[in-house]
Amino acid sequence: MGQLRALWAAGSVAVVGASTRAGHPGRLAVEYLLRYGYSGRILPIHPTATEIAGVPAYPSVSAAGGAELALILVPAAAVEAAVADCAAAGVRVAIVGSSGFAETGPEGRAAQDRLAARARAAGMRLVGPNCIGAAAFANGLVASFSPLFSGAQTTLTPGGIGFASASGALGFGTVSLALEREMGLFAAVSTGNEADVTALETLAEMAADAECTALLGYLESLRDPAALRALAAAAVDKPTALLVAGRTQAGARAAASHTGALATADRVVDGALRQFGIVRVSDVDELLDVGDAFALANRPAGPRVAIVTTSGGSGILAADAVAQHGLALATLAPSTIDILKEVVPAYGSIANPVDVTATVMRDRTLVARVLAAVAGDPGVDIVVVCFCVLTGADVDAIVTALADAARSSGKPVLAARTGADHLAPSAAAALRAARIPTYPTPGRAVRAAAALHQAGRSRPGARPGHVPVDRVPPAPRCGQEAELKDWLARAGIRVPRGRVVRDPAEAADAVREYGGLAVLKVVVPGLAHKTEVGGVVLGVTPETAADACRRLRGIDGATGVLVEEQVGPGVELLVGITPGALGPVLTLGAGGVLTEVLDDAASRVLPVTEHDVRDALAQTRVARLLTGHRGQPPADVDAFVDLVLRVAGLATGLPPATALDLNPVVVRPDGAVVLDAALTAHEPPTTSEEAAQCW
Amino acid sequence: MGQLRALWAAGSVAVVGASTRAGHPGRLAVEYLLRYGYSGRILPIHPTATEIAGVPAYPSVSAAGGAELALILVPAAAVEAAVADCAAAGVRVAIVGSSGFAETGPEGRAAQDRLAARARAAGMRLVGPNCIGAAAFANGLVASFSPLFSGAQTTLTPGGIGFASASGALGFGTVSLALEREMGLFAAVSTGNEADVTALETLAEMAADAECTALLGYLESLRDPAALRALAAAAVDKPTALLVAGRTQAGARAAASHTGALATADRVVDGALRQFGIVRVSDVDELLDVGDAFALANRPAGPRVAIVTTSGGSGILAADAVAQHGLALATLAPSTIDILKEVVPAYGSIANPVDVTATVMRDRTLVARVLAAVAGDPGVDIVVVCFCVLTGADVDAIVTALADAARSSGKPVLAARTGADHLAPSAAAALRAARIPTYPTPGRAVRAAAALHQAGRSRPGARPGHVPVDRVPPAPRCGQEAELKDWLARAGIRVPRGRVVRDPAEAADAVREYGGLAVLKVVVPGLAHKTEVGGVVLGVTPETAADACRRLRGIDGATGVLVEEQVGPGVELLVGITPGALGPVLTLGAGGVLTEVLDDAASRVLPVTEHDVRDALAQTRVARLLTGHRGQPPADVDAFVDLVLRVAGLATGLPPATALDLNPVVVRPDGAVVLDAALTAHEPPTTSEEAAQCW
Repeated sequence: MGQLRALWAAGSVAVVGASTRAGHPGRLAVEYLLRYGYSGRILPIHPTATEIAGVPAYPSVSAAGGAELALILVPAAAVEAAVADCAAAGVRVAIVGSSGFAETGPEGRAAQDRLAARARAAGMRLVGPNCIGAAAFANGLVASFSPLFSGAQTTLTPGGIGFASASGALGFGTVSLALEREMGLFAAVSTGNEADVTALETLAEMAADAECTALLGYLESLRDPAALRALAAAAVDKPTALLVAGRTQAGARAAASHTGALATADRVVDGALRQFGIVRVSDVDELLDVGDAFALANRPAGPRVAIVTTSGGSGILAADAVAQHGLALATLAPSTIDILKEVVPAYGSIANPVDVTATVMRDRTLVARVLAAVAGDPGVDIVVVCFCVLTGADVDAIVTALADAARSSGKPVLAARTGADHLAPSAAAALRAARIPTYPTPGRAVRAAAALHQAGRSRPGARPGHVPVDRVPPAPRCGQEAELKDWLARAGIRVPRGRVVRDPAEAADAVREYGGLAVLKVVVPGLAHKTEVGGVVLGVTPETAADACRRLRGIDGATGVLVEEQVGPGVELLVGITPGALGPVLTLGAGGVLTEVLDDAASRVLPVTEHDVRDALAQTRVARLLTGHRGQPPADVDAFVDLVLRVAGLATGLPPATALDLNPVVVRPDGAVVLDAALTAHEPPTTSEEAAQCW
Repeated sequence: MGQLRALWAAGSVAVVGASTRAGHPGRLAVEYLLRYGYSGRILPIHPTATEIAGVPAYPSVSAAGGAELALILVPAAAVEAAVADCAAAGVRVAIVGSSGFAETGPEGRAAQDRLAARARAAGMRLVGPNCIGAAAFANGLVASFSPLFSGAQTTLTPGGIGFASASGALGFGTVSLALEREMGLFAAVSTGNEADVTALETLAEMAADAECTALLGYLESLRDPAALRALAAAAVDKPTALLVAGRTQAGARAAASHTGALATADRVVDGALRQFGIVRVSDVDELLDVGDAFALANRPAGPRVAIVTTSGGSGILAADAVAQHGLALATLAPSTIDILKEVVPAYGSIANPVDVTATVMRDRTLVARVLAAVAGDPGVDIVVVCFCVLTGADVDAIVTALADAARSSGKPVLAARTGADHLAPSAAAALRAARIPTYPTPGRAVRAAAALHQAGRSRPGARPGHVPVDRVPPAPRCGQEAELKDWLARAGIRVPRGRVVRDPAEAADAVREYGGLAVLKVVVPGLAHKTEVGGVVLGVTPETAADACRRLRGIDGATGVLVEEQVGPGVELLVGITPGALGPVLTLGAGGVLTEVLDDAASRVLPVTEHDVRDALAQTRVARLLTGHRGQPPADVDAFVDLVLRVAGLATGLPPATALDLNPVVVRPDGAVVLDAALTAHEPPTTSEEAAQCW
């Protein structure tokens, strides 16, 4: 177990900046620890006071004899000394709640860097600055000044859901909504400016704790590949969902101005989370909806959903959501249908979605029979039950039947209740007590079920599928196409036969040598898009070779002409490697001249497995062309996957800050061939717009 | 005003099937009318009883002296007689709540058809069968048996929002949620099986009522172009949003089994709603979110959003949503920035999103200054204010400042509150009283603001932009390409020069005539995809013409060879006309061999305006190619738009059940040319999968 465990398991907590003034953050923090029954040592730190809120106070953490966890709430100018005191006293984790650091500008950033350096030197971990603290829900360890914990009705609901948030206010707002839903929480940590500890690392550490069963996070950037891998490894059986803000250029710009961190392109975030089996959500209520499903002990064995509804309309909306979220409508067994035929009236429906009508739902025996039959059907993995207006009379029978069906089938059962609470005031509590996650619409219930399915799919663990390319020398520096292709060929990647010629006669010879049909390309050092200067001639024969060669040599800066065998038509894809905050990223997708227009690509962070490559390919629309389109023979997908894995293997040989761009790669029935290759300096984007635009 | 007005304005209501038994639907309906203070005549109809719930009863509507509105709740077998009674008694609208009609199978459908025929013959309108009735909220006219109205806490909140739903249970579940939000409602009508009156027609009729200011609807199909046009015309200043279920194949199949109606392809639904200025939503909570914004009197003059937040995280999520929903982040004026500089601390942000920090929000004066400055900024059209945890102390100052800013600026002000209600129990009511629509997340607030903007954009009214093609004869019957192109050419649509030849010598002559470079295409009656049989030869010269002609004549069924001038390369688009439930539909998008793979098209129902065509084009990704891509000169977009409008004009000349498919249409700097054209029999899809797949 790592050091961050102190955030939820510390046996002693120092509140540095504890205050005698009512309502002051440093007073609230002490009061919260008392109010929520924290049984460890509470150590208020105050320069002069001898007690705060009835608890003995000390002038420093050192004077208090040390603490496992410290919450620092002094003004910015006094934070460095407080951090030094904590470090000297052997504090394991110091949470700096104070504002006035990187978020205020360069001076603040320098001060923040000093805090991090001091902590690092002492082996102490530092959370924040500019955060609202942490809370653990089983032991009342509330090391926070969030107003949430002042609420007269606030009670902590302990459970298995770990939550970390880069935003303090939004994070504890989200926690307040989780508690309002009575979601059982393990711990909640806000990481603020992330001078040292990140939300991602915190989640990975929570995942290592047996009491934590699922993870939710709010992030404003994704730039720590090691933490991502650690999280994926630690959370292999613990469903995890992340809300990564800054998806759009506008959002990324706002995030950059807020955190100073550059955005990671949205496609890369999407690809990385998918690769590591992490569910991505796009709003706070979706994060909590998914969390409610993650709290279920029953996990789906597959994607097949049975919908049971009292309203045709809800059934249609649920079926739409099943298709939209990558689940499947279950086909019910004949024996299930037989039972439904006996129970469901003619104006209902016995096909999935099963419309049992409100009449059936009012009969305790019938509803139990229907739900037992549907949940017990071996073709069903998940049951979603949709109600509209529930009234007092309906509720008991329904809740008992739902709980019985979930228990006896071992399958997740979720409910949608599209009706006002007050029409059956006891329903919400009864459904919660029966552990049936309940959502206001069928779409939201199905979305949560889909997240549960998605989180349960195989996690990484398979070894990278990179084809060994050890003996290949490092790539040529931003080299010429011919040298680059030679380098690729030595890694076992197919390129057209070709060579650089200087004069027309040599060109004609080469065309003959390559079977009488060739492509001629101008060689201009540093030129990226040869087609835009008319620098590529297709379909050159021995007869037309000399002319074509002469024309290309006339282009500004031409140093030679590359003659290549002409490869027949096929599906044009792209394969690229780009450096980024998550390390080198592999991108593949639709290539050729339409690359930008089609905008049809998927990314994965390296290293990748063969599964990653096939999964990324399956995300693109252009992949449909590979199976044979309009009577074309199917292309050699295996050859393409092998090529991509070899490219991924080459990535380690790339100079730093260099992007490799193979486009097009033509995939044909007889293999995959790189037609054009470029190696370009890839400066890290200087604005968040650029970051959002690049792969 | 139309007859349907009786649904919310009838002066007398008969309840046919009124019952003496407590809890019976026919008893509930009478009780609801009494409970909610309906002041018109209540006429319980019962074969023998002389009073029901204290109200004098009659054996028939005729015996009662007639009624404007009737709610029929007798068993299915007795409905036809009840409808006949209503018709004879001069009832204007009869609502049939009873089940047991089309939803049960062919016999039920026949019985339902008889009801509709009887009503039609008498000039009476019929709502249902298999519906839950209607309710008006200002006068207590609750002609329904929904359990919603039994709730001890249910109160009607009158207002301007009209709601119609094809689903009864989901519809009144939605109404219950609307009332829970205290959304002010005008009327709610469930239309069930829609034997006569549709939800769409009901909305159009509500829109004609001055008391109704905005419209929300839930539909399970979209197949009444006249009602859609009537709604768009009547609701020109009344924002309208529809939830059309059955988007996916799975959902469309569920809808078909529920209503017996075939789905209209999702792309057509999208295009039609956009064309008519109707907002499309995808879930019930989104419908209600949008409705809360529609209730605002302030309407945005443009898409520019200022975000004011107490949390950086909320600001980022709001900025993401602004970009995702087609709005723009406002650029604040220097004078606004100056005020913010004075007020906002260094750890906040004075750029949009404006992060004022929680400290400012706690100061009554500061929060008012910030909001007045931002809302008053001439570069701002909409203000979205994001809070997280609100506590009691914050609320008063905030609500007053929000209300003042909205009033003085005349701009919509919406709020997000991502925190639990109980932390400031009075906040929700205060915000409602101040008419600040408030949402649980920034994303939902921005989505609602976007709907308000979208609904306010110009509605149809412009005349169709079809180019007159009156003197063009009807299209040839599923004709040959050459005849079809001749027909297109006579409508002023550019096609390549060309003619059908029979022998090799003639082919060579034709190639010479067309400039020495031509395309040869086999003519095989009834063959749709010539490329798949190798029936197209490009780049034919006078020298190669004879050979190519001979080869094509060898293809099975060949009756000739079409020789056409070869048009230079350009952007390949498609233009099609397809018949459907909404009448003929125009589709345009990416064409050529990749049509299906790219799946990049937009649809509009005919007739279309020039704006419709340009807007549809702007929805496609391929349109980006037209502006000049990778150094290509820009294509002649105006020529393409003119071509599309001519095609739309030709649609009236198409034989019934025929689809016209122009693909590819090549758009070049010098114009737009139809390279291939086909006219095919277009049977209505026989399954909902087919319907979802076709355009």
